[in-house]
Amino acid sequence: MRQNYLIGVDLGGTNTVFGIVDGEGNIIKEDSVKTQSFPRVEDFVEACAQCVEPLIEGVGGMEVIGGMGIGAPNANYYTGTIEEAPNLPWKGKVPLAKLLSERLHLDVVMTNDANAAAMGEMAYGAAKGMRNFVVITLGTGVGSGIVIDGKLVYGSDGFAGELGHMIVDRSAEARLCGCGRRGCLETYCSARGIVRTAQDFIDAGRMTLLSEVGELSSYEIYKAAKQGDEVALETFRITGETLGKACADITTFCSPEAYIFFGGPMRASEFIMPSIISSYNEQVMPIYRHRCKFLVSELMDKNAAVLGAAALKV
Amino acid sequence: MRQNYLIGVDLGGTNTVFGIVDGEGNIIKEDSVKTQSFPRVEDFVEACAQCVEPLIEGVGGMEVIGGMGIGAPNANYYTGTIEEAPNLPWKGKVPLAKLLSERLHLDVVMTNDANAAAMGEMAYGAAKGMRNFVVITLGTGVGSGIVIDGKLVYGSDGFAGELGHMIVDRSAEARLCGCGRRGCLETYCSARGIVRTAQDFIDAGRMTLLSEVGELSSYEIYKAAKQGDEVALETFRITGETLGKACADITTFCSPEAYIFFGGPMRASEFIMPSIISSYNEQVMPIYRHRCKFLVSELMDKNAAVLGAAALKV
Repeated sequence: MRQNYLIGVDLGGTNTVFGIVDGEGNIIKEDSVKTQSFPRVEDFVEACAQCVEPLIEGVGGMEVIGGMGIGAPNANYYTGTIEEAPNLPWKGKVPLAKLLSERLHLDVVMTNDANAAAMGEMAYGAAKGMRNFVVITLGTGVGSGIVIDGKLVYGSDGFAGELGHMIVDRSAEARLCGCGRRGCLETYCSARGIVRTAQDFIDAGRMTLLSEVGELSSYEIYKAAKQGDEVALETFRITGETLGKACADITTFCSPEAYIFFGGPMRASEFIMPSIISSYNEQVMPIYRHRCKFLVSELMDKNAAVLGAAALKV
Repeated sequence: MRQNYLIGVDLGGTNTVFGIVDGEGNIIKEDSVKTQSFPRVEDFVEACAQCVEPLIEGVGGMEVIGGMGIGAPNANYYTGTIEEAPNLPWKGKVPLAKLLSERLHLDVVMTNDANAAAMGEMAYGAAKGMRNFVVITLGTGVGSGIVIDGKLVYGSDGFAGELGHMIVDRSAEARLCGCGRRGCLETYCSARGIVRTAQDFIDAGRMTLLSEVGELSSYEIYKAAKQGDEVALETFRITGETLGKACADITTFCSPEAYIFFGGPMRASEFIMPSIISSYNEQVMPIYRHRCKFLVSELMDKNAAVLGAAALKV
């Protein structure tokens, strides 16, 4: 019998979501467990099994399942382990792929969220038919998944693709990053980095609708930009410029067919994208100019994390 | 009969060198033609054939030849063409791989010099047994060959791997590059860039043995460094620091097992390498620290360009 379905797992700090995904990229069954309820990883594995087994039965049993892919923070593809993930309850190196594989008698592969997002775009989204592209995820941090010649780049140790930690500002006053260094891309272009850019304008006394907002967010900045607020517009322009110059450097590495941007701030793509494109084409080496596509994820209205994880087994 | 030999071709602005390479990476026969003597590419192809055919006969004829690899400036692996190479006599896109393949009845592949160097290191040099590494060539410019999962990275269009044009200095006074932009790695770390660093110290009135040198070169700077000359030592220290910080960014991309440096300036590796390593480990994201090897090419005393080109067919 054909193995028509894949299981995608979005392992997050709050919920772990299981989805049964069909060949067209539809999530046809879904359920979840509370990640934090299981301080012992063995209990978590058992809870996962009890959650997913009814889903599997519901589509016809194990014979129709092609495997399980997991997107998880700090996951290492090569070892199938989660390593020192700050927002998960288990410490040290957790061999989760092996534990789940043994419990469920399934092939299980695991990688980080941004890599899963890249596989999701290739299987079901904006990168269909592409073999060389880079997905950049703008969230709490900036993540990336790099696909070269149809394959995810994992590097020598499984830790490749951390483009959020390229240095885009080498000046002494560059922003401090959570990784302990200064000037990382994510300090400017993550959702937090974007808020910080706007906050800096407010602190400098610039007139803006945003002064009246209780808690700044990229969505509040988007709403202000829609109303023509100069500070909001400039915030997105700077965000796009910074992404554009980072992409100009990334292109010297892998000359991708496209960059695909994913995440909450890309709801404001009408303001960010033109600035990414013009900054990139101004700053990239001449041989690469005007040859690259800049796209918004096509999975943002779907459960991209589950689809991306399932796509690891496509 | 086994195909025991490969043909490596180093196509340069002055000479085009042909070598017959055995399975252990020895060049057992070699000959060359003058590239500039053939303004018409058809005549060049005929001259190449007449040069290489006797070499082939000398090892037992076509049956023992596994193919031909060419390293050439501005060569595109995908199309087998040389495109607008400033130092070659033919203009436009030249389909050299096809022309030579048809004339010689051989499989012919072609790529740029730095990519060929990377394949050479993997087949015969410092990267033997590695599947993820980056070769950086320091010459007139700075070139690079990136190997991920055992394969050269060509990108969507064949133009990947131009790390000499990563921007390492975004300040207004950054050095102008031949590509028309400012702050490219090669403006600091090519042989010319290194000379320029030393010249800047001389122009600023620093005391140095180098003031008395007629024509500055990385070799003259090396000799001065050997004598403890402060300016020469500082020149190499700055070169290494700049390479180290570029590598720190490259690691976020592909997390290689090693960086391998090739080219004339690496004769001074005793002065450059410690600075590369300390700068890298200071500047790289903490998860990558002290995990990467920094090596000097093992092909610098051999004909690396011919070996690298042959290795394209390994």
